[in-house]
Amino acid sequence: MNASAANIGVVGLAVMGSNLARNLASREGNTVAVYNRSREKTDALVAEHPEAGFIPSFSYEEFAASLTTPRTAIIMVKAGRGTDAVIDELVKVFEPGDIIVDGGNAYFPDTIRREKAVRETGINFVGAGISGGEEGALNGPSIMPGGSDESWVTLGPILTSIAAVAEGEPCVTHIGHNGAGHFVKMVHNGIEYADMQLIAEAYDLIRRGTGKTPAEIADIFTDWNGGELESYLIEITAEVLRQIDAETGKPLVDVILDQAGAKGTGAWTVQTALSLGVPVSGIAEATFARSLSSHPEQRRVAAALPGPDSTFEVDDVDAFVEDVRQALFASKIIAYSQGFDEIRAGAEEYDWSIDLGAVAKIWRAGCIIRAQFLNRIADAYAEEPGLPVLATAPYFADSIARGQGAWRRVVVAAAQAGIPAPAFSSSLAYYDGIRADRLPAALVQGQRDFFGAHTYKRIDKPGTFHTDWSGDRTESEAEDTH
Amino acid sequence: MNASAANIGVVGLAVMGSNLARNLASREGNTVAVYNRSREKTDALVAEHPEAGFIPSFSYEEFAASLTTPRTAIIMVKAGRGTDAVIDELVKVFEPGDIIVDGGNAYFPDTIRREKAVRETGINFVGAGISGGEEGALNGPSIMPGGSDESWVTLGPILTSIAAVAEGEPCVTHIGHNGAGHFVKMVHNGIEYADMQLIAEAYDLIRRGTGKTPAEIADIFTDWNGGELESYLIEITAEVLRQIDAETGKPLVDVILDQAGAKGTGAWTVQTALSLGVPVSGIAEATFARSLSSHPEQRRVAAALPGPDSTFEVDDVDAFVEDVRQALFASKIIAYSQGFDEIRAGAEEYDWSIDLGAVAKIWRAGCIIRAQFLNRIADAYAEEPGLPVLATAPYFADSIARGQGAWRRVVVAAAQAGIPAPAFSSSLAYYDGIRADRLPAALVQGQRDFFGAHTYKRIDKPGTFHTDWSGDRTESEAEDTH
Repeated sequence: MNASAANIGVVGLAVMGSNLARNLASREGNTVAVYNRSREKTDALVAEHPEAGFIPSFSYEEFAASLTTPRTAIIMVKAGRGTDAVIDELVKVFEPGDIIVDGGNAYFPDTIRREKAVRETGINFVGAGISGGEEGALNGPSIMPGGSDESWVTLGPILTSIAAVAEGEPCVTHIGHNGAGHFVKMVHNGIEYADMQLIAEAYDLIRRGTGKTPAEIADIFTDWNGGELESYLIEITAEVLRQIDAETGKPLVDVILDQAGAKGTGAWTVQTALSLGVPVSGIAEATFARSLSSHPEQRRVAAALPGPDSTFEVDDVDAFVEDVRQALFASKIIAYSQGFDEIRAGAEEYDWSIDLGAVAKIWRAGCIIRAQFLNRIADAYAEEPGLPVLATAPYFADSIARGQGAWRRVVVAAAQAGIPAPAFSSSLAYYDGIRADRLPAALVQGQRDFFGAHTYKRIDKPGTFHTDWSGDRTESEAEDTH
Repeated sequence: MNASAANIGVVGLAVMGSNLARNLASREGNTVAVYNRSREKTDALVAEHPEAGFIPSFSYEEFAASLTTPRTAIIMVKAGRGTDAVIDELVKVFEPGDIIVDGGNAYFPDTIRREKAVRETGINFVGAGISGGEEGALNGPSIMPGGSDESWVTLGPILTSIAAVAEGEPCVTHIGHNGAGHFVKMVHNGIEYADMQLIAEAYDLIRRGTGKTPAEIADIFTDWNGGELESYLIEITAEVLRQIDAETGKPLVDVILDQAGAKGTGAWTVQTALSLGVPVSGIAEATFARSLSSHPEQRRVAAALPGPDSTFEVDDVDAFVEDVRQALFASKIIAYSQGFDEIRAGAEEYDWSIDLGAVAKIWRAGCIIRAQFLNRIADAYAEEPGLPVLATAPYFADSIARGQGAWRRVVVAAAQAGIPAPAFSSSLAYYDGIRADRLPAALVQGQRDFFGAHTYKRIDKPGTFHTDWSGDRTESEAEDTH
């Protein structure tokens, strides 16, 4: 170790990597080694930011030599094969006890696979979800690191130094082993999809129900941002709705093509939930709403399908807006409840010890879904760490109890008016489903036993049963194999 | 080749395999070789069914020697590693031009992988979805074979000989190459999930809205089975609802535990649709409804959550029942429209040439979703093979136009009454979404550009754009990279 040795390195100096490196360099106690496959990016970064005191390297050997031990390097390259290639190189020049961090948007099964492979060399591998985009990387992201306890001893202080801060607490915590960090980051993004779709439905209902302009609706969102809905997404929604297109003089939202893109993390969240048997219907509807919007040829032919006869016009505009606000909050509670349910189930499946309250806390700043609201989630899990359904915590249950009349009126209005509100209505159906004394799932079990001898259980005694539907229709106890 | 040589073999003689072998043996022109890992099952089958004239074998070598060329064998073992093990053995004893058929419930990517591997040996590999359960295997299933054109020359007549028959037409068609058959079988099962959930919601709404008994509701389903809803699932629903539990004297449906099981094909269908970007919200809600029902510990705590203040009581019972019937039919059209959309998208993605009308036709008998209704789907694709949205075909669009008032009233009633109707309401939201002139996806694109510089497109000119939200808020043309 010499005076110029770095305690942390960054590999991959595109915007995210450069910003993260600058963030690291700006914090007391860090000296940052940087490496990029093409020399130009390294030279440019070092030249543009002399204040950072970067230690540049132009080979992996040089990069490893510039780091104090245990060597710690964060990979910031596009998720996929590029990540594997960098890992292969780092493993060659690192030693047992060193730490390789993947700060990209990896799919958590890939992280589990990589951690297992790298661990064989004695080197630590950490998959870290980093949220907050380019701006967050530079000024303070929310960080969700997985990996071993050993790696956390060295990595913890470094990540803590650059994370966003919420109410004095850094937005980083050791989530759990191997893929836990990327798993939680995935669910964060899934919740983000649901949150955005709910906001979009609220906007659409108000606009089509009241005829208010986007600028007027922007004011409503700004107003909502002062209450229990306070959040970054509500805040920027107002900004987007207020924006006027310079070219046409129209509201920008009316000039933007209504086909929503997606980068796959919403789909991952739902696919994983399906494997885990967790109903994340709000996230699913949000993901499907984006794909539905992105098929112009289908929408063109379907535009001829008729809607309801009546036109939609709200009598009491202020009351309707308040109803939508309450419906939005109730639906949002369900979306988060489903998302945290997926994290709980994932932790069980993959044997991660995840503190759900700590997850809520590190989302309070630096990431897209940041909001005061997350304090309430942290409170709920502090009160009852094993809470089986987040929405049943007193604060949330009370909020829904107060808001459910409004929630139902809004879902009713949407159905009557022919305005799609898939996330609002599916959240309500989930709420009514999970609280139901008795579900028609019993009939489904009867059907399954009829056509496939899949058997059923009874409410009044243990065991597994089958009715001889094609014979004399007597019931017999069955082996539970179907 | 000698007089006793078999033109078809079956490997795996559990119930499905035995029944399929007996079905094959019962058809003119077939001589059936049989093989099972443990000798006992083979001996038992041959002893119990002398009329079948089975040619038993007790080694793979013997099995291969008992088959005429091109040798054709159907594997009927539990999907998974067992299938790979049998394939490995058959490849050793078969020759180029021979045909290995996997008749199990394989996940289609596995079939694609296996077909690719087996093809290298010159042997044909066919993944065939077989629907209809044990009874169908014996008397006539609906069969969905993939695989090469070459294999179809030999296999076609054999499968045709055992398939179910609908209006004189055998329920089998060459679906497409490699995994196409198992893909279509998967979507069949996904549609089945949606169909069952919709029926369950209809039952639940009528029961809770009118107080009718299960036996009375059975009569309603029997009545419905005489009209446009005619289907095997409606028919057996009446049978299940009519069944009285011998032990308690109660309707069996009230004694069955209301936790629905699942074997994973519904989840596969939704996971695949998410990868393909196809919104199959009805299938997703049905799959989630089953998983929601199966978490008793969550339902126990959530049972305390309050419902609406008002009690649910329908004024005009007959009118409500008719509304539910129409809502069920409209929702069913959407579920099938989404399912066929997934097949269309899968064919595009995997380069399969799938005749959607032919798929509808082979589902008319032998399988769980068999129904007259499928003729209408076949008609729609005969009329317009490239139909982008099935629900827009005149028959379906007219049905929805007639029924949409009822559909909306039922979704409204469910929301007001606190009865979960996730599949009804999500189907309606899909319908209102796909026919919408303008979706709030534009706002979502604005949000994504604000927080992640993901860019957007404009309605009035080509190109990809970004607004400098954190700067002077001017718009610039951007590279389409985000």
